[in-house]
Amino acid sequence: MRHDHVLTAKQFSRADIETILDRAGDFDGPTGDTRHTDSLLGLLFFEPSTRTKMSFETAIKRLGGDTIDMGSVDSSSVTKGESLADTVRVIEGYADAIVLRHPKQGAAKMASEFVDVPVVNAGDGAGHHPTQTLLDLYTIRENAGLDDLTIGIMGDLKYGRTVHSLAQALTNFETTQHFVSPESLALPPEVRYDLDEAGAAVAEHTELEGVLPDLDVLYVTRIQRERFPDENEYRAVASEYGIDLRTLEDATDDLSIMHPLPRVDEIDPAIDETPHATYFEQAHNGVPVRMALLDSLL
Amino acid sequence: MRHDHVLTAKQFSRADIETILDRAGDFDGPTGDTRHTDSLLGLLFFEPSTRTKMSFETAIKRLGGDTIDMGSVDSSSVTKGESLADTVRVIEGYADAIVLRHPKQGAAKMASEFVDVPVVNAGDGAGHHPTQTLLDLYTIRENAGLDDLTIGIMGDLKYGRTVHSLAQALTNFETTQHFVSPESLALPPEVRYDLDEAGAAVAEHTELEGVLPDLDVLYVTRIQRERFPDENEYRAVASEYGIDLRTLEDATDDLSIMHPLPRVDEIDPAIDETPHATYFEQAHNGVPVRMALLDSLL
Amino acid sequence: MRHDHVLTAKQFSRADIETILDRAGDFDGPTGDTRHTDSLLGLLFFEPSTRTKMSFETAIKRLGGDTIDMGSVDSSSVTKGESLADTVRVIEGYADAIVLRHPKQGAAKMASEFVDVPVVNAGDGAGHHPTQTLLDLYTIRENAGLDDLTIGIMGDLKYGRTVHSLAQALTNFETTQHFVSPESLALPPEVRYDLDEAGAAVAEHTELEGVLPDLDVLYVTRIQRERFPDENEYRAVASEYGIDLRTLEDATDDLSIMHPLPRVDEIDPAIDETPHATYFEQAHNGVPVRMALLDSLL
Repeated sequence: MRHDHVLTAKQFSRADIETILDRAGDFDGPTGDTRHTDSLLGLLFFEPSTRTKMSFETAIKRLGGDTIDMGSVDSSSVTKGESLADTVRVIEGYADAIVLRHPKQGAAKMASEFVDVPVVNAGDGAGHHPTQTLLDLYTIRENAGLDDLTIGIMGDLKYGRTVHSLAQALTNFETTQHFVSPESLALPPEVRYDLDEAGAAVAEHTELEGVLPDLDVLYVTRIQRERFPDENEYRAVASEYGIDLRTLEDATDDLSIMHPLPRVDEIDPAIDETPHATYFEQAHNGVPVRMALLDSLL
Repeated sequence: MRHDHVLTAKQFSRADIETILDRAGDFDGPTGDTRHTDSLLGLLFFEPSTRTKMSFETAIKRLGGDTIDMGSVDSSSVTKGESLADTVRVIEGYADAIVLRHPKQGAAKMASEFVDVPVVNAGDGAGHHPTQTLLDLYTIRENAGLDDLTIGIMGDLKYGRTVHSLAQALTNFETTQHFVSPESLALPPEVRYDLDEAGAAVAEHTELEGVLPDLDVLYVTRIQRERFPDENEYRAVASEYGIDLRTLEDATDDLSIMHPLPRVDEIDPAIDETPHATYFEQAHNGVPVRMALLDSLL
Repeated sequence: MRHDHVLTAKQFSRADIETILDRAGDFDGPTGDTRHTDSLLGLLFFEPSTRTKMSFETAIKRLGGDTIDMGSVDSSSVTKGESLADTVRVIEGYADAIVLRHPKQGAAKMASEFVDVPVVNAGDGAGHHPTQTLLDLYTIRENAGLDDLTIGIMGDLKYGRTVHSLAQALTNFETTQHFVSPESLALPPEVRYDLDEAGAAVAEHTELEGVLPDLDVLYVTRIQRERFPDENEYRAVASEYGIDLRTLEDATDDLSIMHPLPRVDEIDPAIDETPHATYFEQAHNGVPVRMALLDSLL
């Protein structure tokens, strides 16, 4: 049993990523290899994230293990004035690994310093969410390949943790990245700086139109209402950076459209029936990818 | 693996019902046959229904499978502005079948149109709750038989979804049905019409007294306080359509008393100790019946 | 399968305790014996107690069984005006044993009178919490032995259910008990009376200082803010009956410090790194002890 923590996508080299994605491939599909484990996975979700939680739950149960769930924080007493350090030190006596979701950036790293069992970061506020990045990479590799890839990433590029991690991870591969957003939601300078430092081929745009025909993958993210003081301004922006069948007229036949879900209005449901729609497959890929990761930790 | 959806008791023929009840018999009791499955059952309860949920959970776990639970909606993020269609399409990537409870009539049918895994309706508002009907039928068959049966159904016959489904399902058998309620809570005309169309032997009453001695089964339902603007009127009606030991003086020794539970004041606890009390057995029957159903779907 | 209920630590003789603790030893550690069971454990927590619940959940799952969880009461419908007697009579049709946590004293005993499956009391208000006592005893035995023991019990001795049960249980062994508390939170006369009746060696103190050097174990409990009308008085008391590295200067090297957790300020985190800190081990011991207990019931 190895006792590594999974805290950020940045900790993975290209070789690490490829090993995990290859293993995920083994677990993908109905005839997948399902090595059994008796391990118990502790689920500590200090804020709700149903999709991520159900995906981890499915992964460990498909592997033959089971979960120990702290439950929702409001109906929990474990946190009554108790420090996170104490909580995880109690839980490590119950579980063979801990999946931690926490609203505070750095929570997973801090927790990992207090326990001997592996801690998997399932999102720490504005920080990291490495398993989301891995499932994004897996989905891209399955649909378009990770090298010789031209990807467009559109929507809220300023606050979107998912986007920053993915962009960073893609610098491990031969990828051209086009970022499309309103100026007010453009990539933060420090993220752009890191991409440039890594030698990534990157361009920023305020319109999808010119770049769409070149894309193998279009990754759409949600623009949150809360970012805009004015409802009308929100509506205008949301509509400009959403897509429908008409938007796709200039796309290649092979374009894959991804979205971390849940979507609200960014992708018209009419697109669901086209071969472009890859977002449900992307959500489903969370299971084999998390199986591969847990399998390597337990 | 068959991919049928279970949306309403109406979809079952007499032969279907008998097949499921026979299989339930195999699973009933401590020495029951428990064919093992590795399947994961997705539990999507958009409103609380603890008894139904625990019963499904018990059924799949007794079969050797496990659950993936969305949790309660207030502590859930899966539904943040997300359509039901999107939610179930994500969940079908996790679970081998979906049990859906939803406050809106038609929700289960709608969901079934978007996914390839079986959807089991566990109650959709004023709509259907087919596994409740199946466990009622199983309980009746075990205690009195479904043919040559004389059953009384008492209480809120107007709003009681359970009652409408059961009455409809009983038309597959040689059954005489007596409906007992205050006029304000009588069977809706369209339900009565359907029963007549099906050739059922049906009579309606406002008092239990005259009909009680003829009954093999008395199915009591809860009269909800919310139906009455006036508290005193509620009390009067609730008391008239509740039963205690004195009520049962005219009953046959073999009378089985059923109730979908939870009861409030409709059945005096003194009856619990008599051989008439069948309502706890009825609740327990939810397990073998749901095992039989899930076993046929997975 | 034996059908005993576990309602209070008082029901155990010295021989019973030793049998359970010996069995717990078999389950302790990574190479532990894990006899498999297919049993389902019904978790009925009418108030939150996350730590206790996760510990029972871990125990039954490590044994190979599984749980059926009623969920939190606010998102539960099982209790809608339903009596506890009805609830447990329904659940006994699902589960092979019931773990009950309830805010009302006597709830577990009452529940046990209505069902045929074993009921384990996981805390009933000001009443009992026998598995907490067993894990405390196990931890003391592992670290200091139960005979020839000198233990100090400090903090809220008036309202602390944990303390009363533990003190009572220790009268089965050759133990000297020192109670340390402010006068306003001293041991209730009836508890003291019972200890004297049992022939226990007992002394009461208002200061730890004089007695600390004699102790093998110091059991610290939380002093609750709610007990004091005045915030300043609370702070003064909490500080006087909390411990830090300086407090421990007079302790023997072998002193074990225990605490039922969660702690707030009673034990300075600097103590965590010393060999005295036994409270996380104590929490972890809940698993093998509950495995041993469930194993004997199922």
